[in-house]
Formats: sequence, structure tokens, C-alpha cells
Amino acid sequence: MSWENNVRRVVPYVAGEQPKNSQVIKLNTNECPYPPAPGVADVLHQFNEDVLRKYPDPDVAALREVLAKRYHVKPEQVFVGVGSDDVLAMAFLTFFNSDKPILFPDITYSFYDVWADLYRIPYEMQPLDESFHIVKEDYFKENGGIVIANPNAPTGIEAPLSMIEEIIAANQDVVVIVDEAYVDFGGTSAVSLLDKYENLLVVQTFSKSRSMAGMRIGFAIGNEKLIGYLNDAKFSFNSYTMNATSIVAGVASVEDEAYFQEITGKVVATRERFRKELEALDFESLDSKTNFLFAKHKSKSGQEIFDALRANNIYVRHWNKPRIGEYLRISIGTDEEMDKVIAFLKEYLEK
Amino acid sequence: MSWENNVRRVVPYVAGEQPKNSQVIKLNTNECPYPPAPGVADVLHQFNEDVLRKYPDPDVAALREVLAKRYHVKPEQVFVGVGSDDVLAMAFLTFFNSDKPILFPDITYSFYDVWADLYRIPYEMQPLDESFHIVKEDYFKENGGIVIANPNAPTGIEAPLSMIEEIIAANQDVVVIVDEAYVDFGGTSAVSLLDKYENLLVVQTFSKSRSMAGMRIGFAIGNEKLIGYLNDAKFSFNSYTMNATSIVAGVASVEDEAYFQEITGKVVATRERFRKELEALDFESLDSKTNFLFAKHKSKSGQEIFDALRANNIYVRHWNKPRIGEYLRISIGTDEEMDKVIAFLKEYLEK
Repeated sequence: MSWENNVRRVVPYVAGEQPKNSQVIKLNTNECPYPPAPGVADVLHQFNEDVLRKYPDPDVAALREVLAKRYHVKPEQVFVGVGSDDVLAMAFLTFFNSDKPILFPDITYSFYDVWADLYRIPYEMQPLDESFHIVKEDYFKENGGIVIANPNAPTGIEAPLSMIEEIIAANQDVVVIVDEAYVDFGGTSAVSLLDKYENLLVVQTFSKSRSMAGMRIGFAIGNEKLIGYLNDAKFSFNSYTMNATSIVAGVASVEDEAYFQEITGKVVATRERFRKELEALDFESLDSKTNFLFAKHKSKSGQEIFDALRANNIYVRHWNKPRIGEYLRISIGTDEEMDKVIAFLKEYLEK
Repeated sequence: MSWENNVRRVVPYVAGEQPKNSQVIKLNTNECPYPPAPGVADVLHQFNEDVLRKYPDPDVAALREVLAKRYHVKPEQVFVGVGSDDVLAMAFLTFFNSDKPILFPDITYSFYDVWADLYRIPYEMQPLDESFHIVKEDYFKENGGIVIANPNAPTGIEAPLSMIEEIIAANQDVVVIVDEAYVDFGGTSAVSLLDKYENLLVVQTFSKSRSMAGMRIGFAIGNEKLIGYLNDAKFSFNSYTMNATSIVAGVASVEDEAYFQEITGKVVATRERFRKELEALDFESLDSKTNFLFAKHKSKSGQEIFDALRANNIYVRHWNKPRIGEYLRISIGTDEEMDKVIAFLKEYLEK
């Protein structure tokens, strides 16, 4: 017998590359091209380091309070974690304890099946239709829970809130997680449904629309009872997940609503302009409510364009998977960065 | 059927209080009374906030490299997490997957049984002897893994490295975790045993000896294969746990070895002085290799003294549990803080 026999073997999630080369136009992990709100820099530059010798507030009250105010809920309805991945992982562990399979789309955030495998949660993927839309009837059968990214990744497509509501309403005996990592780029949040459904958990992140991927802040909003269970699991895992700098930086970000509106608006404007320019180069892209486009060329293969872009220091994301192998997921950078992408593609496709 | 039927119900760990009142002499969570190394403040005050829009390095290479150098191991032997609680929680999930019970002392860090409950890991507590020492023979039976805090908390007692080695050697078919949260205050690390035993995982933290509880940094050192499995589980949970500020702050701390030696030395000196002063007031304290003392008074009850201290804004830790109900765990603060504690106790006990 070896100690290795008792090891939990898993196949980990593979995140997009974080190249150290600063020459790269990095459009592969859906980061925001603009810096965080100016107040974030201020609180770090004025940070009283003596605070660090003490444990941070385990309740993260300051951050939960500003989020509660921003989303018109009570602080007791807000849960925060080390990025929305931490929040989602905790939610899977807490709420998906049935022998019945949890349900999610076949093409979606590829961490869902990894968490299910990690925690030995049975799951059944539900195929999106030919145009990559959710088939709501697939979620009207018996299950152990549901998780839907809306807008979806890597497609960028948003399901209408009415469809999300139908799915939540039809599944009140399980928890339905709506993962809204990209909602701030033109999507409609399910937070408005919280008063009607106590089985709903909405998850969002500071990584995209708040330009704070590097600070690791995610949050969930739900009814108090549900958030209470999530907290119990969290406090059985790690009393202090949010460090002192992330708490003050998170608060500073939420307090600057104008800046948030400004940068998300800029990303949406750049996306729409970039989409048209891609179309002029014979790309088809799916209708996106996110900070990325999922696009394929009418004749050139996805792999080929991916390789060509990469060889020219333009990093996008590509999956060698059924149904989406011809597509590239291109994060929306600055206008200048997207101009460079278009200029390169124009030259490359004309060859 | 309600969604609540599928909820993982747990009884969370209760951490020591984090009072908002700054008048409190806070000796209840074993924090260090001195600020972090000066370089930590520098990197925060000069932090380039634009970095935050990108995800941090998922491999946390910079921090793992300085730790590897400091502990004379390879970077591939180092795992980092959001405090040692995060590291320990991941290690429990990864390595304790047997039907046989894991073993740990009855009086020890009270998070061990919480993690076991969270992950449905069977466990059997092994009673410490009358003088709160480990009985090594208790760990020579079949088990699913072992976790030992050394020095132990809340007793402060260190088991000799030879005993730790005997336990590791007798259990090479399971993983033995040695939790060395307090080792830097005069203890002897098991890191030196890593070349001999591939079933050993040593866990340490920046929260005590590096004055960085607020930054949430912990780490584990083990052989490459074992750390590889731990990484697989971690990357199945959250690709980016360490935020950008904690990485640079962690590096700055490790790079200042002189400061580290200075403040841990000061804490040890204060502890020994405080111990003698407590003894003069009719307290008995256990031999501590940590930044706290576990002490009881010869006549006054633990609860009574705890309440009196608290009423006077001196926070220490007390557990209403069998065997240790008469003891107080008193973290070592500055000389000035400990003088105030002694002055209060002198007056209080003379009444």
C-alpha cells in the first residue's frame, strides 16, 4: 500500500496563459484593458501596513455592505470570495449534495465539470442548440441542481431573463446558480428575481468589469438563508479568505460607480465596432453581451488563425473541442489593441 | 422536497474575535505585535495598480522561488495558499480519501475535525497524556492519514523531532501532515526529514512569525510528487488563489531574513519574561515553543480570569472544553502590552 492510493485524483481546469512577455496583446482571459478605479490605487498607496499583522475581518463587512447597497439587497444576502471561482466552488460544495445529476450546458464555462469531478458530484451536460442557445426544456427534468452562465462563456450569448426565470421556477426543489461573470457588459441580471425565488444564487466577479482580476474578488447574492448555508461551509474551510488589501480595494471600486459605467461602456462600444470590422473580414460572430467575441472565419480554420495570431504576439483563446473548434474567443481590449488585431488579420487573410 | 435537503450541513470553526475597538489589548488570536518587514509596506505603497486588471501568476512562481531558497528545497516542492488554513483544507481534500479514520490529538487546532466533517472524512482523536504530550504509540495503528500540529496549539508544547520521525516512518502508506504554524518561535521544523520520507507534508504560515495574518499567506513543503497532487486539487478549485498584492508582499517578507529573526527573537524573549512573571502570580504554564502561553492559575478558575480580563479590554482565548477549561491561551504581545496584563492580574488577584 502506498500513500498515493488515498490521493484524490483530478484533472484540473486549465486557465488561459499568463505570458510574462509584455509585448503580447493579451486577449485570451477576458481581462479589462483599463486600470481599476483610481480609488483602488489610492487605498493601496496609503495602506497602513501595521493592519497586516492582524487577521482581516472574517465577515468582510465593509465590502458586503457596499455591495448590498449597490445591488439593493441586505448585507446578509451577500457572500464574498477569492474570485467568483472560489464562490462557485463553495456553492457547488454546499448546495449540490444530491445523488441526482446537476445540469449545465455542454458548451459553457469549463470549470463546472471540474468542480463536479473534484467533489464527486454527478452531472449531465445539456446540449445547446445549433445556434448555441439554451434549450430550456432540457432543464425541466429531475436534477440535483443547475448552473447556468448568463451571458454564457465562451459564446457570449445571453438567455433572456424570462427563460432564466422559467428554469428557476421549474426547479424550486434545488439550487439554481446563475453565473453572471459577464453581465456588466450589456446583460440583464437575475438579481431582480431574488425576491421571488429562494433557490436562486447569483454569482458575479470583480475580475472583468471592475478590472480587478489580480485582486481576486467575487461575490454571490441570494436570500439570507441560502447565504447562511454558504457561509457555514466557507467558515468550515477558511475563516479568513479575503485579505486586508482586497477588502479595501474592493470597497474603493464599488464606491466609484461613474468609473465603472465609463469603462464598461467603453468596452461595449469597442466590442461593437470590432464586431463590424471582423464581419468585413468575413468573420461571423455570435451576439455578445460580454467583454469578448466568439467568432469564426468563413473559410480559414480556427486553429490556423489562432496559430497565426499567436506567432504575432496576439493571444486569444481557442478550444480543440467538438462544435467550437472553428471559433476563437477574442477578449475586447483597447481600441488601439483591437485596431492592431484587425490590421494583422487584414494583412494575414489577404495573403 | 426543498432545495434545503441537498445542502451540506456543517458546524463551522469559530475563530477568535476580531474586535473593532482599538483600545483592546488583543492577545486572542496569536498575532504578532510587530509590523511586517519594512519591504512589505514599500511594495504596497509603490504598487502599480494597472497590474490588477490582469490575473495574477497562477503558479505564484516568485513567492515559491524565494520560499524554496529559504528552506533549501526546489520550487516544485513548495505549495502556497490563502493562509495555512487554505493549504490544510486543500491537503485534507487531496490526501485523506480513505475509509479508515485519520488520526490527530484530542487537544489540538480545532479546525482539524471541522475539515474532516466538511469533507466527510472519518477521524479518531487520540488523547494527549496527562501532561498534554503526544503518545506516539497511538499513531502506530491503521489509519487514513495523520495530522499533527507541532508545536501544538493551544498547548504550545513541542514534540521532539525524533518522535515526529517515528510517527512518519511508521505510517509510510498514508500522508502525515505536520502543521508548523508556530515553529518559528523556537521549534524545530520537520522540513529536514523531507529527503527521507515522501509521505510527509510540512505546513507553515506567514500569519504569526511574519506578522502577515491580514495578508493570508500559508505554504506547504513536500516532495515534488505530493505537491503535484496538491496542485492538481488546487487547480480544480480555483486557478488563482493568491492575489497580486499578497504575492509581492510575501516575497518582500521572505527577502528580509534579518527582520524575521529580530521579531521572532523579541517575541520569544518577551514570552520567557512573561512566563516568569505569571509564575510569580501563581500561574502554571506549559512549556511553549510558540508565540503564546497556555496557563492556568492555581486557585482562580479559567472562566473567571477570562471574564475579568475581557471586562478590562484584555482579550485572550478560553475554551469551555474538558481538560482545558481552567487554561487561558495568552498570545505574546509587546513588552508594554504584557506589562499591562501583569499589572492588571496583580491587582485583580490581590483583591
